[in-house]
Amino acid sequence: MADDEFTLIYRYFSSMGRGEAVDLSVGDDCAILSLQPGERMATSVDTLVAGTHFPIDAFPEDLAWRAVCVAASDLAAMGAEPRAMTLALTLPEVDEYWLAAFSQGLAGVCHLYQLPLVGGDTTRGPLTISIQVMGALPTGKALLRAGAKVGDQLLVSGTVGDGAAALAFFGNQWQPPPEQAEYLYQRFYRPTPRLDLGKSLLDKATAAIDVSDGLVADAGHIAAASGLALQIDPSLLPLSQALAAHPDQQVVRQWALTGGDDYELCFTLPAGAPSPKGCTVIGEAIVGMGVHCGLDIDSAGGYRHF
Amino acid sequence: MADDEFTLIYRYFSSMGRGEAVDLSVGDDCAILSLQPGERMATSVDTLVAGTHFPIDAFPEDLAWRAVCVAASDLAAMGAEPRAMTLALTLPEVDEYWLAAFSQGLAGVCHLYQLPLVGGDTTRGPLTISIQVMGALPTGKALLRAGAKVGDQLLVSGTVGDGAAALAFFGNQWQPPPEQAEYLYQRFYRPTPRLDLGKSLLDKATAAIDVSDGLVADAGHIAAASGLALQIDPSLLPLSQALAAHPDQQVVRQWALTGGDDYELCFTLPAGAPSPKGCTVIGEAIVGMGVHCGLDIDSAGGYRHF
Repeated sequence: MADDEFTLIYRYFSSMGRGEAVDLSVGDDCAILSLQPGERMATSVDTLVAGTHFPIDAFPEDLAWRAVCVAASDLAAMGAEPRAMTLALTLPEVDEYWLAAFSQGLAGVCHLYQLPLVGGDTTRGPLTISIQVMGALPTGKALLRAGAKVGDQLLVSGTVGDGAAALAFFGNQWQPPPEQAEYLYQRFYRPTPRLDLGKSLLDKATAAIDVSDGLVADAGHIAAASGLALQIDPSLLPLSQALAAHPDQQVVRQWALTGGDDYELCFTLPAGAPSPKGCTVIGEAIVGMGVHCGLDIDSAGGYRHF
Repeated sequence: MADDEFTLIYRYFSSMGRGEAVDLSVGDDCAILSLQPGERMATSVDTLVAGTHFPIDAFPEDLAWRAVCVAASDLAAMGAEPRAMTLALTLPEVDEYWLAAFSQGLAGVCHLYQLPLVGGDTTRGPLTISIQVMGALPTGKALLRAGAKVGDQLLVSGTVGDGAAALAFFGNQWQPPPEQAEYLYQRFYRPTPRLDLGKSLLDKATAAIDVSDGLVADAGHIAAASGLALQIDPSLLPLSQALAAHPDQQVVRQWALTGGDDYELCFTLPAGAPSPKGCTVIGEAIVGMGVHCGLDIDSAGGYRHF
């Protein structure tokens, strides 16, 4: 029975399921979660497909990290606190080494972000990793895409463009110096879901989204949902050392504005409100539609899944 | 933008997201769900992979039904009431006809089982359909696999073996008469999650599971979790007309005991408790381990995903 679905799940994933909101974890027909009085549940699902979202030969430990960070970033973008997650894992074959490495990565990231693994499904097929995260939100509060007001400041956390730069590096279109190569590798495979920031913005931000498809594309969702335009000043975009040192700053600007995979928070604050630590004002909300950055960039120019 | 992920999701799936527990549906970074005071959340995820769980050329409308029914069956097996679901859909290409038919099936099954579609992810890759269901359970109650007592009756709802018979029919190993062929087709692609039965068993059954991997294999999980053995009398197995009319009753018995995909509830009731309508006593809980049926069947002989 070494290759049996149940044995696999039990062996590799059953120890990651404990958490304060978890009444029943992996091992029955459903998991059972409890919310505290005054809490609602926020939930989101993200799928990574081999060959589409990551190279076929990516390290399984890195894939586990990336899959969970990407999904957790949606909790951050709502201001929700992580409570639990499930994993739908499709594998071409039973590879004990792959599973051991993947589960090691999963255990690390589960623990770091307090996302116990409470359930899942393991099936045979082309490698696909689907993570559903569940978080808690105080009743009546949430960071939505709608809500920005004309005159609001537009901000972004961390640095942008690193995801696209990493992909250019992986695709041999650019060779960064070694220490920056390592930095970009980590940024791509272990992006930081801005959970603390998201939670702290619940009473402050008027709108928020995470930068998964590209800054312009994602800001475009805030603009559309809020019924206004967002003006971005490209000279204000926060860049990592890796990108600031790149010889072609036009390429860097393109990465920062349209590259996806940064998993930073893009949000609006009322005029005059102080910037949270680690965040940068990059523009403002104005009357109109779409996202304007003074460059010839399609406002839907972010990463498309088709 | 006709082939853009967002457009796809909005066009095909955005109208299915309303429900009493749904505070925020498709269209933001997360969906938001509310539970009533005294409720907990039960959740489960099930993945169907083309070529593994269904033929590549299966009708998309049927796939939507089957994916949701299979996932909802896990709510039934816990006694939970459906509240919402998410869909992680991986598609090899944008096929508007496929999506239109799939979403039509999804809309039908969502509506029937009160499972509004509150979120999802659409990605490019080999056809994979992952449904996560979320349901509500009264605090402190749930149908678990553990809890059966020696002397309990073992029951199953509906009829068993139809899923395996349907697969034999699809694989041209058997040609049922036309009206039974239609019945088996429907049983396979539109199995009935026993939601009302599950809920009604919350105060009655000592243990429960749904029959997805085969009666003997699934009863084996109850036996293992409850620390006892289950004795099944094969002559008591409830069979559909399609199976009762089959010329080889030995084959039928094999289907009924080890075939999966029936999505009936298998459960234990205290001795002397009346059988719920549509359910059949098929055996009892005894001292020991495993599942015994007087035939040479491996107790892990159900469907294996690897």
